[in-house]
Amino acid sequence: MSVTGEMLIGATALRGGDSEIRATNPATGEKMDPAFGGGGAAEVDRACALAAAAFDTYSNTAPEQRAAFLEACAQGIMEIGDELIERACAESGLPRGRIEGERARTVGQLRLFASVVREGSWIEARIDPAMPARQPLPRSDLRQRHVALGPVAVFGASNFPLAFSVGGGDTASALAAGCPVVVKAHSAHPGTSELVGRAIQKAVQQCGLPEGVFSLLFGNGGTLGSALVADPRIKAVGFTGSRSGGTALMKIAANRPEPIPVHAEMSSINPVFLLPGAMAKRAEAIGKGFVGSLTMGAGQFCTNPGLVLGVEDDRLKTFLDASRAALEASGAQTMLTPGIYKAYEEGVSRLSTNNRVETVAEGQPGPGPYQGRAALFTTTAQHFNEDETLLEEVFGASSLVVRCPDVDTMLAVAERLEGQLTATILMEPEDLELAKQLVPVLERKVGRILVNGYPTGVEVGHAMVHGGPFPSTSDSRTTSVGSLAIRRFLRPVCYQDFPQDLLPESLRDGNPLGLWRRTDGELGKN
Amino acid sequence: MSVTGEMLIGATALRGGDSEIRATNPATGEKMDPAFGGGGAAEVDRACALAAAAFDTYSNTAPEQRAAFLEACAQGIMEIGDELIERACAESGLPRGRIEGERARTVGQLRLFASVVREGSWIEARIDPAMPARQPLPRSDLRQRHVALGPVAVFGASNFPLAFSVGGGDTASALAAGCPVVVKAHSAHPGTSELVGRAIQKAVQQCGLPEGVFSLLFGNGGTLGSALVADPRIKAVGFTGSRSGGTALMKIAANRPEPIPVHAEMSSINPVFLLPGAMAKRAEAIGKGFVGSLTMGAGQFCTNPGLVLGVEDDRLKTFLDASRAALEASGAQTMLTPGIYKAYEEGVSRLSTNNRVETVAEGQPGPGPYQGRAALFTTTAQHFNEDETLLEEVFGASSLVVRCPDVDTMLAVAERLEGQLTATILMEPEDLELAKQLVPVLERKVGRILVNGYPTGVEVGHAMVHGGPFPSTSDSRTTSVGSLAIRRFLRPVCYQDFPQDLLPESLRDGNPLGLWRRTDGELGKN
Repeated sequence: MSVTGEMLIGATALRGGDSEIRATNPATGEKMDPAFGGGGAAEVDRACALAAAAFDTYSNTAPEQRAAFLEACAQGIMEIGDELIERACAESGLPRGRIEGERARTVGQLRLFASVVREGSWIEARIDPAMPARQPLPRSDLRQRHVALGPVAVFGASNFPLAFSVGGGDTASALAAGCPVVVKAHSAHPGTSELVGRAIQKAVQQCGLPEGVFSLLFGNGGTLGSALVADPRIKAVGFTGSRSGGTALMKIAANRPEPIPVHAEMSSINPVFLLPGAMAKRAEAIGKGFVGSLTMGAGQFCTNPGLVLGVEDDRLKTFLDASRAALEASGAQTMLTPGIYKAYEEGVSRLSTNNRVETVAEGQPGPGPYQGRAALFTTTAQHFNEDETLLEEVFGASSLVVRCPDVDTMLAVAERLEGQLTATILMEPEDLELAKQLVPVLERKVGRILVNGYPTGVEVGHAMVHGGPFPSTSDSRTTSVGSLAIRRFLRPVCYQDFPQDLLPESLRDGNPLGLWRRTDGELGKN
Repeated sequence: MSVTGEMLIGATALRGGDSEIRATNPATGEKMDPAFGGGGAAEVDRACALAAAAFDTYSNTAPEQRAAFLEACAQGIMEIGDELIERACAESGLPRGRIEGERARTVGQLRLFASVVREGSWIEARIDPAMPARQPLPRSDLRQRHVALGPVAVFGASNFPLAFSVGGGDTASALAAGCPVVVKAHSAHPGTSELVGRAIQKAVQQCGLPEGVFSLLFGNGGTLGSALVADPRIKAVGFTGSRSGGTALMKIAANRPEPIPVHAEMSSINPVFLLPGAMAKRAEAIGKGFVGSLTMGAGQFCTNPGLVLGVEDDRLKTFLDASRAALEASGAQTMLTPGIYKAYEEGVSRLSTNNRVETVAEGQPGPGPYQGRAALFTTTAQHFNEDETLLEEVFGASSLVVRCPDVDTMLAVAERLEGQLTATILMEPEDLELAKQLVPVLERKVGRILVNGYPTGVEVGHAMVHGGPFPSTSDSRTTSVGSLAIRRFLRPVCYQDFPQDLLPESLRDGNPLGLWRRTDGELGKN
């Protein structure tokens, strides 16, 4: 395979004429070949028309056929081989080991959703059998299943060029639900996007599916991206990125003649709570571990720990000393894009010039043009409460330690936080009573609560929640990582008094698909 | 109990001073006593503050305690006795039998949700056990459950003064999920609202729950209702009513600093498809049955069949003749409110003066001031396609028969429809192939598809879907009737590496609550 700079619209490849997009190698600052042609209204229209045309067929594929397609996508991504790894490294500045790991996660995710599709619980089949003799009125035969919402627009994220991009979690879960997908590629990694897109395009063809099941567009977010979300054939949106980008899509979706759900994963500062018992035992080790999590991947994770809360005492001083030492020794890392580097530098500069904030440490400078240096700041709880800007995410390896006079203040600060993807509690058994006070506060504000770990590193499984109240996401009722993510793209339909041969197979008498079904509310395999 | 005209804010009752609200007996046109005092910003603030204060305690009640509370609400509503029936009849103009049936449905719904809470599947417990030896990285212990969203604002509907009002489906499902509820009563039935509200207030006290679990406000929808949805402590909205009312709440919710989900059930014309085989066998019987469904309850149902599609031939003529005869014999019925009567008269008048539409029949006039007469109209498919206003709901017993030249046109008209709560197919076995073409179109647009029945009459069970794509609701991913409605008010939270004694009981080792849980994706009782 080689990168051509073309969009993929159904089975075809074509060069957009509305704009020119080039990736920048952030390690060197050099523009990369080839130039990509960005599309416009005509390409959005064509991709959406094909997606709508594919919907009835694709959404009614048998579980086995759909699962095999997801596995073919995974296989195709692996078969690109080293070209994909090299292109993704060059476009993102991320090291080879990380990109190889991310590829494993991406194909693992596609395979997980294949297994979810086969297992079939996502259908949530329910049967309330007819009761013709019931008084005062007979009951009809009622059967419920979940069906796909419709074509889904997916926006690739900058910070995971594979796992949250063209073939990432949003695409995998939407395809698993039976929704055709139109991806708007992130302009930071167009080559990676095209390579993965071609693998999916090929899988569509190999599996004999309608071409409109998948399209890949390049272009400007404000024009092409907005047009995609506004298109009446699109029925849901998946997005991972900035708060401003996500809320802009939310507005467009809410103002359509037919409003649609947006699943935007946006902004989170991921508070870390240092409880006294843990600090008494291991303040130094916690400081080191924290800096390891903070600086991983140049801090460019949604779950990066951007806020630390502790009680101001000698142990916190030990924590800060250990953090300072670790952070000052940390090397600079290439950031994903010039824009992200610039925003990070501005965020760090806002903190370092804020009168309410003290700088604890800065990491080592680096040789390239977009080298992010980690940064650690501290402030008091009182200052933190006075300044709303301190609640804002600085995307990158920057964190703020809030020194609280006591644990009650720590709880009060927790109450002030906005919605978060994660919160972390560092504790020992003697902190249990305090943790029991903290957890209900966090449950209201957070999608995932960790004990004695660090929030970076998101497991792809059944129990994961990568979500949370606004602004961490636009819709806290779901997750964008893990098998529950399929539910974002489903809706229930009830079939009343249907003859057997008109019913979908999942709801027929005798349970031909062998599903878990709920009969009069009772779960069973009958 | 007697009706005082007071609002119920937590454990207190107080008279609002912002406006005066009086019910009108629509059968006589007379204003009813007492006058109700409408509230304002201060009462919204107080109710929301109490709801927020109650949240941590109420959302963490054990399943048994919460179920007992729902049953106490049901019991309390029954214990009001005849005063409730008489007041609801007087305020709504609905006959006694209907109100008694609606009360049975309302308490049945509360008891259904009690059983749902006890059964516990709504928690959706998931456990991915730790894998400390996994390569290249160990896996943490991850456990997921669903928790309550937060305080919910519920808007009472005019057309079901019990089942979709103060103690109706939205309240029952939100309370079942663990959410405190603040109800904004519908101004058409304030006395009914107060009586039911006092029963719930008493149940809160009897069950030893925090007073903020339930409040009942009276007031203007545009001011008090808007303030309630805008209050930062409210985390979701349940509404049943008009398209304009629902979309207004959607806008307010979307424009909050923290946008929240709105579950508005709004507008549906509930198309009925007359397939040729069925028409050949029983066109006359279908006409009679259709008019029975159309005129039930003066047509004041969300699922009233407002659109009929058939192929223009002699059988359709037979159907129209039978419908005409039945409809002309139908008596006028008291409509719910002067406003609903006026809107219905205007809607019928728009149709009867529309050049593209012919009047088939009108029902008998009635003696009172707000007597709705059923009305049936017809048009051609071509005219129907030319005039978008014909897609609009006329709330009441009005319907439009669209004469299609052939079945392909019928399918094409189906494609043009907006989202609907229901669609109905009248068919015989020989219509199966045509029905198989129609069902995928309807699955995209409809929450419930019926064969050989009529859409009025919504069963409260596990398999029901009372929902559908916009504009029938604001969020097609759920239902407002049936046990799945609880999901509207839940969100997942993941607990990573929690010690056993900090975990919620539902997720502890040994499954102390005996729940269905998913372990590494496998459903079981372990």
